[in-house]
Amino acid sequence: MSAKKDIFIFDSTLRDGAQSEGISFSVKDKINIVEALDYIGVKYIEAGNPGSNPKDLEFFSEARNIHLKNARLTAFGSTRRRDIKPEDDANVQSLLLAETPAVSIFGKSWDFHVTDIIKTTKDENLKMIKDTIAFFKSSGKEVIFDAEHFFDGYKNNPEYALKTLEAALEGGADSLCLCDTNGGSFPDDVFNTTKLVCNKFSGSIIGIHAHDDGGMAVANSILAVSAGAKQVQGTFIGFGERCGNANLSAIIPNLQLKRGYNCIPDNTISHLTKTSRRIASIANIILQDSLPFVGMRAFTHKAGMHIDGVNKASKSFEHLDPELIGNERRFLMSEVAGRSSVLQKIQLIDPDINKDSPETKEILDRLKELEHEGYQFEGAENSFELVIKRHLKKYKPFFELEHFKIIGEQPAINREISSSALVKVRVGNETAINAAEGDGPVNALDKALRKSLDGFFPQLKNVKLTDYKVRVLDTKDATAAKVRVIIESTDGENIWNTVGVSTDIIEASWKALVDSIEYKLLI
Amino acid sequence: MSAKKDIFIFDSTLRDGAQSEGISFSVKDKINIVEALDYIGVKYIEAGNPGSNPKDLEFFSEARNIHLKNARLTAFGSTRRRDIKPEDDANVQSLLLAETPAVSIFGKSWDFHVTDIIKTTKDENLKMIKDTIAFFKSSGKEVIFDAEHFFDGYKNNPEYALKTLEAALEGGADSLCLCDTNGGSFPDDVFNTTKLVCNKFSGSIIGIHAHDDGGMAVANSILAVSAGAKQVQGTFIGFGERCGNANLSAIIPNLQLKRGYNCIPDNTISHLTKTSRRIASIANIILQDSLPFVGMRAFTHKAGMHIDGVNKASKSFEHLDPELIGNERRFLMSEVAGRSSVLQKIQLIDPDINKDSPETKEILDRLKELEHEGYQFEGAENSFELVIKRHLKKYKPFFELEHFKIIGEQPAINREISSSALVKVRVGNETAINAAEGDGPVNALDKALRKSLDGFFPQLKNVKLTDYKVRVLDTKDATAAKVRVIIESTDGENIWNTVGVSTDIIEASWKALVDSIEYKLLI
Repeated sequence: MSAKKDIFIFDSTLRDGAQSEGISFSVKDKINIVEALDYIGVKYIEAGNPGSNPKDLEFFSEARNIHLKNARLTAFGSTRRRDIKPEDDANVQSLLLAETPAVSIFGKSWDFHVTDIIKTTKDENLKMIKDTIAFFKSSGKEVIFDAEHFFDGYKNNPEYALKTLEAALEGGADSLCLCDTNGGSFPDDVFNTTKLVCNKFSGSIIGIHAHDDGGMAVANSILAVSAGAKQVQGTFIGFGERCGNANLSAIIPNLQLKRGYNCIPDNTISHLTKTSRRIASIANIILQDSLPFVGMRAFTHKAGMHIDGVNKASKSFEHLDPELIGNERRFLMSEVAGRSSVLQKIQLIDPDINKDSPETKEILDRLKELEHEGYQFEGAENSFELVIKRHLKKYKPFFELEHFKIIGEQPAINREISSSALVKVRVGNETAINAAEGDGPVNALDKALRKSLDGFFPQLKNVKLTDYKVRVLDTKDATAAKVRVIIESTDGENIWNTVGVSTDIIEASWKALVDSIEYKLLI
Repeated sequence: MSAKKDIFIFDSTLRDGAQSEGISFSVKDKINIVEALDYIGVKYIEAGNPGSNPKDLEFFSEARNIHLKNARLTAFGSTRRRDIKPEDDANVQSLLLAETPAVSIFGKSWDFHVTDIIKTTKDENLKMIKDTIAFFKSSGKEVIFDAEHFFDGYKNNPEYALKTLEAALEGGADSLCLCDTNGGSFPDDVFNTTKLVCNKFSGSIIGIHAHDDGGMAVANSILAVSAGAKQVQGTFIGFGERCGNANLSAIIPNLQLKRGYNCIPDNTISHLTKTSRRIASIANIILQDSLPFVGMRAFTHKAGMHIDGVNKASKSFEHLDPELIGNERRFLMSEVAGRSSVLQKIQLIDPDINKDSPETKEILDRLKELEHEGYQFEGAENSFELVIKRHLKKYKPFFELEHFKIIGEQPAINREISSSALVKVRVGNETAINAAEGDGPVNALDKALRKSLDGFFPQLKNVKLTDYKVRVLDTKDATAAKVRVIIESTDGENIWNTVGVSTDIIEASWKALVDSIEYKLLI
């Protein structure tokens, strides 16, 4: 038995997270996220609101086939409407149809919402809470009561806010979750109010549900735990309506690795970064690079002095060992990076070069020049290796472009093929010319180039492009703006990233493609 | 005289912010940011580290020509190195060359850093702090002492950490800023430690400098103020090394509008959103949409129930009136948006349609279908207006594409023109065919299309594209992935946004271009 205090992590990525602008989950997406969350070991997965979104019922019906190791599936819905019985309320009924072991039921804790938004009496609202919860308890569900707007309600009318919690307990609620629905509360207020509730209802499990409108959702959740809350609601990577929900990928390691609580199993916390990235990828959003703990830059050092410090002792400029949560340390190649980190890269290629060698300055100058043109090697380090090798004349290009031509047309041929490309390359004294059709000009160009090179370099057969990103620079020039293309490639074993910049997206893509192939031929 | 407690806002966008991955300021960028920060009324602008970045001296020399109304320019640098005099230290000398009224001097407060990183004795470190500050005081500067790693140092050796503050005061420091350099501190610890320091040095101005590695930099800063800190350091929109610095655009409104402090003049706080966006644009980064207070989504509602609530009373789902800080409320067009917000849009076009009209359901279905294809009308509302108008047969397209062809080639003609396009359009019974060259295929296509339409619609002459964004969807298919193109256009008076989606970037761009022109012809 662990001596650590258990915290029940309640993830709402699929419900509150789905309220975020730009998020739209398919049933398959939701199943994939449920599996990822269950694997890492959260306790509750709130996966939909069948009353307001009938599509969610399809998901719940499919979800019954998943065997969950750690989590309880939870459906979310409102208390019954005023003046009817729970069993006559369509939303309540649709919650039952979800057939989940747990339900979370939200009710109003702020008297202003009772009188001015749902327009009923304060007494009827208390009955709505109690009745609805009692109904679900009699159906055998675990019931979490979400006290909506609890902190705003408590400020406005503390007595009434507490009465709504009492009503929920009278109905049989298994836990009471205090919601900062508008997200504007301060950590000291959250601490004091939560402490008071925990003292008053000392036999009950108290939860916290914070939003980030004031930029303090993580701190509010953590101080609620310090005050005695045992359930923490949030979304795994923080997205949600407006400014988002409390970010569990920051709360979990803060509580577990620094404050001695037990949130998820000790043997899965090293999957924190991977799980966050997987959820971002399923949700089709870009995980913010600066996200605490799991972001690509969370342990990235740019200042020369910091890089020196971390090389001496990592704790000098890192609050945590990134390996604990499956993230990694990076040193940047950039103007400010200072010579030492660029030199490290150079010495991997030619150990005889030192910081005073003329080549070091030349390569730094070349780096500045390329950065000025719009290149960034952060995230495309392999292209930077090629820059160094080219400068040191460590290799001759494996092939040269004689010329290419691409043709795009609309209406598309057979309504499908919109582009074709021809590419002529020279390898030594031989040339090869090939053509290919594709879905768009870059795809056609990629295919034609590979067709021309496969005969010379059979090792390219296994190479696939796995990611393609376009960033428009200087957007004020609109369609004549510069674009930066970053390509990720793999041969099944290695993964590498290359970059190209141009005002022409085709040319930028071509440069990144050529680097990708050159890099593969060198490893 | 104001009864409010004054807080001195210290912005380090140009120094600590410049440590952020992907940030690289020109001298002109820095001047522009200084002007924006001074206008909104921050008290200190820390604008560079002349010792580690000699380019910063050029900036400081130019900056002397700016007349600042509110702010004091501040240069940042280290204490002298060990075992030499301040006047013999090159970094100290370069700080003087910056000729700023204030300097911030960082020194080590964590004994581990003294012995293991800069490798000197604890006594010598105290002398380095005292001597260096005394030297700058004798040169007539205001001196802020940045107690680097203060909170980690205090945990490890409280007595020594406090001694470093004493040494700074003995040297004559005007204020003592407590830094959470590694960003991993908790708000309750920050509160307790800051309170103790404020009590011990009750005659001095105490500052807080927080980083966001634990996701709690805003809360840490605010709790330090509650504990008595009067100076708050951060970067205006939060970027900085690793996970970034404390985000001033969240701290300022939290303190000023909710806790009664005075951070910036009351008459400039409504410029908070504009200033944040201006700094993002100068720094050439995308302001995170979910950023508290100033993000595009900070007051955006998607759930039908929330939209209804806000329409009844905005405080029902908003923690603050967005107008106070110059931001605005948005309601989303999306599956979950519910009928009411889509209906609002429809009724703008045809007031006779109500929520039960068959057209409402048909348009909602069409919206779902388009979202499924990858369309998003969030940020491209004008394309959604065209979807409604097309569905209601409220207009006939002004022109039709007969066909287009684009040709791209490398090497580029005259090393410049990489693409050409021909476009044939039909307007009524007439057709026009034109060709144009451009920088990349989309630019060529855009020019050829306008050339063909200008004769028919002279009002298009003033239309310009002002922004062009590409988002790759489903990146796993690499170069055959779907792309979403969003175009912003203006005629000098109006601004509108349109969207196109396709696996072919040319086709996606074409769709967005056509919508842009159709929209202009309708207004």
